[in-house]
Amino acid sequence: MIAQRIEALRAEMRLREIDMYIIPTSDFHESEYVGDYFKARKYITGFTGSAGTAVVTLEEAGLWTDGRYFIQAEQQLAGSPVELYRMGEEGVPTVKEYVEQNLPQGGCLGFDGRVMNAKAGEDYERITEEKQGRVYVTEDLAGIIWKERPELPKNPVFLLEEKYAGERAADKLKRVREKMAEKNADIHILTSLYDIAWLFNIRGGDIEHVPVVLSFAAITSEESLWFVHPEVLNEKLQEYCRENHITCRGYEEIYDYAEEIPAGKTVLLDKNIVNYRIFHSLHKEVNVVQDSNPTEWMKAVKNETELSNIRKAHVKDGVAFTKFMYWLKTNIGRQKITEISASDYLEARRREQDLFVDLSFDTISAYGANGAMMHYTATPESDAELKPEGFLLVDSGGHYLDGSTDITRTMALGTLREEEKLHFTTVCRSNLNLAAAKFLYGCRGLNLDILSRGPLWNLGLDYKCGTGHGIGYLLNVHEGPNGFRWKIVPERDDSCVLEEGMVTTDEPGVYLEGKYGIRTENELVCKKAEKNEYGQFMEFETITYAPIDLDAILPEEMTASERKLLNDYHKMVYEKISPYLNEEEREWLKTYTRAI
Amino acid sequence: MIAQRIEALRAEMRLREIDMYIIPTSDFHESEYVGDYFKARKYITGFTGSAGTAVVTLEEAGLWTDGRYFIQAEQQLAGSPVELYRMGEEGVPTVKEYVEQNLPQGGCLGFDGRVMNAKAGEDYERITEEKQGRVYVTEDLAGIIWKERPELPKNPVFLLEEKYAGERAADKLKRVREKMAEKNADIHILTSLYDIAWLFNIRGGDIEHVPVVLSFAAITSEESLWFVHPEVLNEKLQEYCRENHITCRGYEEIYDYAEEIPAGKTVLLDKNIVNYRIFHSLHKEVNVVQDSNPTEWMKAVKNETELSNIRKAHVKDGVAFTKFMYWLKTNIGRQKITEISASDYLEARRREQDLFVDLSFDTISAYGANGAMMHYTATPESDAELKPEGFLLVDSGGHYLDGSTDITRTMALGTLREEEKLHFTTVCRSNLNLAAAKFLYGCRGLNLDILSRGPLWNLGLDYKCGTGHGIGYLLNVHEGPNGFRWKIVPERDDSCVLEEGMVTTDEPGVYLEGKYGIRTENELVCKKAEKNEYGQFMEFETITYAPIDLDAILPEEMTASERKLLNDYHKMVYEKISPYLNEEEREWLKTYTRAI
Repeated sequence: MIAQRIEALRAEMRLREIDMYIIPTSDFHESEYVGDYFKARKYITGFTGSAGTAVVTLEEAGLWTDGRYFIQAEQQLAGSPVELYRMGEEGVPTVKEYVEQNLPQGGCLGFDGRVMNAKAGEDYERITEEKQGRVYVTEDLAGIIWKERPELPKNPVFLLEEKYAGERAADKLKRVREKMAEKNADIHILTSLYDIAWLFNIRGGDIEHVPVVLSFAAITSEESLWFVHPEVLNEKLQEYCRENHITCRGYEEIYDYAEEIPAGKTVLLDKNIVNYRIFHSLHKEVNVVQDSNPTEWMKAVKNETELSNIRKAHVKDGVAFTKFMYWLKTNIGRQKITEISASDYLEARRREQDLFVDLSFDTISAYGANGAMMHYTATPESDAELKPEGFLLVDSGGHYLDGSTDITRTMALGTLREEEKLHFTTVCRSNLNLAAAKFLYGCRGLNLDILSRGPLWNLGLDYKCGTGHGIGYLLNVHEGPNGFRWKIVPERDDSCVLEEGMVTTDEPGVYLEGKYGIRTENELVCKKAEKNEYGQFMEFETITYAPIDLDAILPEEMTASERKLLNDYHKMVYEKISPYLNEEEREWLKTYTRAI
Repeated sequence: MIAQRIEALRAEMRLREIDMYIIPTSDFHESEYVGDYFKARKYITGFTGSAGTAVVTLEEAGLWTDGRYFIQAEQQLAGSPVELYRMGEEGVPTVKEYVEQNLPQGGCLGFDGRVMNAKAGEDYERITEEKQGRVYVTEDLAGIIWKERPELPKNPVFLLEEKYAGERAADKLKRVREKMAEKNADIHILTSLYDIAWLFNIRGGDIEHVPVVLSFAAITSEESLWFVHPEVLNEKLQEYCRENHITCRGYEEIYDYAEEIPAGKTVLLDKNIVNYRIFHSLHKEVNVVQDSNPTEWMKAVKNETELSNIRKAHVKDGVAFTKFMYWLKTNIGRQKITEISASDYLEARRREQDLFVDLSFDTISAYGANGAMMHYTATPESDAELKPEGFLLVDSGGHYLDGSTDITRTMALGTLREEEKLHFTTVCRSNLNLAAAKFLYGCRGLNLDILSRGPLWNLGLDYKCGTGHGIGYLLNVHEGPNGFRWKIVPERDDSCVLEEGMVTTDEPGVYLEGKYGIRTENELVCKKAEKNEYGQFMEFETITYAPIDLDAILPEEMTASERKLLNDYHKMVYEKISPYLNEEEREWLKTYTRAI
């Protein structure tokens, strides 16, 4: 089937004399997860992971994806004509290097200009120019061959009240306009769905588990334009827009708007996000100020209302998770439980919680060797039955009106081997060491990452991903510009200076292909500690409350101070969660949060 | 006196209608330490530290220096008209910001183009252009007023034999030419004295404790030109040059040479090092490839011969230091010892060692509160008598034909307070934690720095400098591009990826103004550990061998694994050093390297 689709694409390419066609994983907004309408890369390659780029030439077809997905992609591409390119591995070209090496002299490179960001589009333009070739960006070839393509999503919009958002849209707009003035920008084009939702205090449902609204925005010193499908706004929302001086225009009108910006005006935009078609609709004499969207940093720095809400959401989420863990640990071996039935049970516990909106992403419930696939999603075909042995890794989270959560626990379902316990204990130490960091203001994730990764490096192990990511408030669970990672990855904007109010996950892991996966993930709020002659010290508050499975811990592999960190953490978990449990659950939690 | 000198400078400035004059701490080669001839900044301000920039306007005079020197500069500038600008502190402008803020519109900015690097010169050019002003760079005003200025140094040159250097100059030149070819450079202008000495396998004595030869070099695919005072080369050296196809020309001829490079040629040079006058002697149509000197990275990666030599040098240096420490610890309170007599005793022990050439820098022997000044040098006036209490901090090293050393030990001379012991123990933990790092290839100092700084940050303490620096082989004890530091400091080129064979110091400390200073410094060789599916792991070998004073250690403040690191280290020290001690010293060392 994949072979046929690729041949169909090649037929369209030949018609237009295109030598190479790129299908990234993107909507028109550089969203991380995309709605079904936008899953052209999955359609063409069969690979279902959330990140990857397909490149098809008349002879070859390749898929580029990152370390989280190597195992999954290998399985899903097996038997197809699509070759896997493992990003970041020695000797593996990047997509751009591949294009440079393989596009023939004078060749034609094609892609849909709306699903390519302006920066990448410019890079490809340059590569083709160097080869005296051309780009072909005016048609969506994948769309042409994809007959049964889903509709563009147009889900209803809802308001996020001030008691949840903590700041009025008008005040947020004022701050954005101050930043625009600093940069002498007349217009700010904002296309990130997360940033638009944050800025206007609205949410929707246009990406599964990411409650955003498919739309574009343009802010001037006077106006706020919102390019959005009109049918998604009810009367109340229309009234809200009028009150907030937000002028609505059609979703597709952004391209005409961009084209009509008068020469001489200055536009602030982020070429890494704004799509190539918008960027190229601008008049040649429009000045572009390239910078990250001011809203990116603003939304990452949670306000006091948001932080207080988030802590409440985490208590509820911790209650749901603890109930699940109690059920799992006490019923394993007594009744049939599978990866999917386990995640269904957990979902049901979350749905019982106050202000629950949705899961914050597809639950990863991965038993045994499936846990080694960082972003495994159980399907009815793969759904493994859990046995009273080995590890179940569950990475999950909830969206609540009072915040979003992202938690991973790996649970021993029975007897473990010594190596499994050693690795679990080390991951726990990694997690606790980072959470306990105290550091001078000015540090970035890359300064702190070794606190988490170091204990694993000492064993000759590593995990092929960052240690943690920023997390949105009822938005994408992955957001920048904060994160923990030891190398700057240019396409990931997650290495900013850590600020008070930023929330970042802490999720070291061990992934042994064919054997097991272990991950322990908590969320950390960055806070100010003392300020003295050396500067402003910073520290973290852990806001995820659920037991770290003591059945898998080797206390003798921890230092006394690490054991104290774990015991203090478990004491807090018990205090926060036990009031919401029944007697049996509470007794169980007492045991599983005991001091070691 | 300082006031008179500044007035004399202002008189010269007025004559030439110069509004502001900059006197950096530099020779014509951007050397870190400079010969007496080049100490114009010290002459003008009275501040003797190794780093600092003076800026004199018709009304004001300022000195900029970094955290190592705040306390010293404060004392030395007291009573003079020179104001101290503490670099890096909140609200303190950089020199460039000060110039931008204070140079009047249409004003004239002066400096000697030979003591300013091309990059900085261009920056100042730009600032004056923005103010419709001009630069005045053709005269050395400090030289005009400085009547008793010393001569330019012209010390004899000696060869560093292949058994010490490990690679022939011809082979080094070949590697440099390969790098030039990669960058399509016809000519490489090399003005770093360290790099020239390394490249040609020659040493001299033109900077105190830095055995370099005042000279410039220009390498083409055919020739090697060495611009050097002819009188410093004896018959043997002249013969060596002929054999190695090194053509000698006069030291000052570099400027004419640069001017005569034909238009269209491509010159590889580092604008951060090559002086502004050379750079501006180039024809406008000469293409400049800006890059670090290829020799910088090459000389930082020590070859097997160098490493094996360096280990030998460290054993000798460790014997000298251990004998000194034994003498100090057993004689304190019994005979009069001062900071200077202590450092003289240590120097004598070093001079007894085989292949000793010189001290590798001015010994810091700092008692009590003097230890809080990171780069204190005892003078006959300041020379403190040591009492049987508190700490003596000794930072010292030797140049041997088989390598250079840099070691700091802080020694308890008697009773210590609990806080002193806690800080000493923490510094020891910091030092050991970094030395024990295991990490994936690709890490830079900024990824590892927190291993050392973290234990101090946990106490709300910090040291206002990097954690460590690269170290030259019979060259400058400070060299790039390796180092440990948590923030990239653009003007310090010390944040490269750590490579096998690089030698870096590990020297955390506590500095409490008016109280005491503690520093423990070892040198670490970067080595490969295992390579597996996660990548190439790296680790360090500690090559400094001297006891860390157990009298100041609180074992209960260390984890079991930290105590093991210390015990393993001390075991190695005993094994390496004890064979070269007399019976009494050996017994003492046994006690001071005992397991705790």
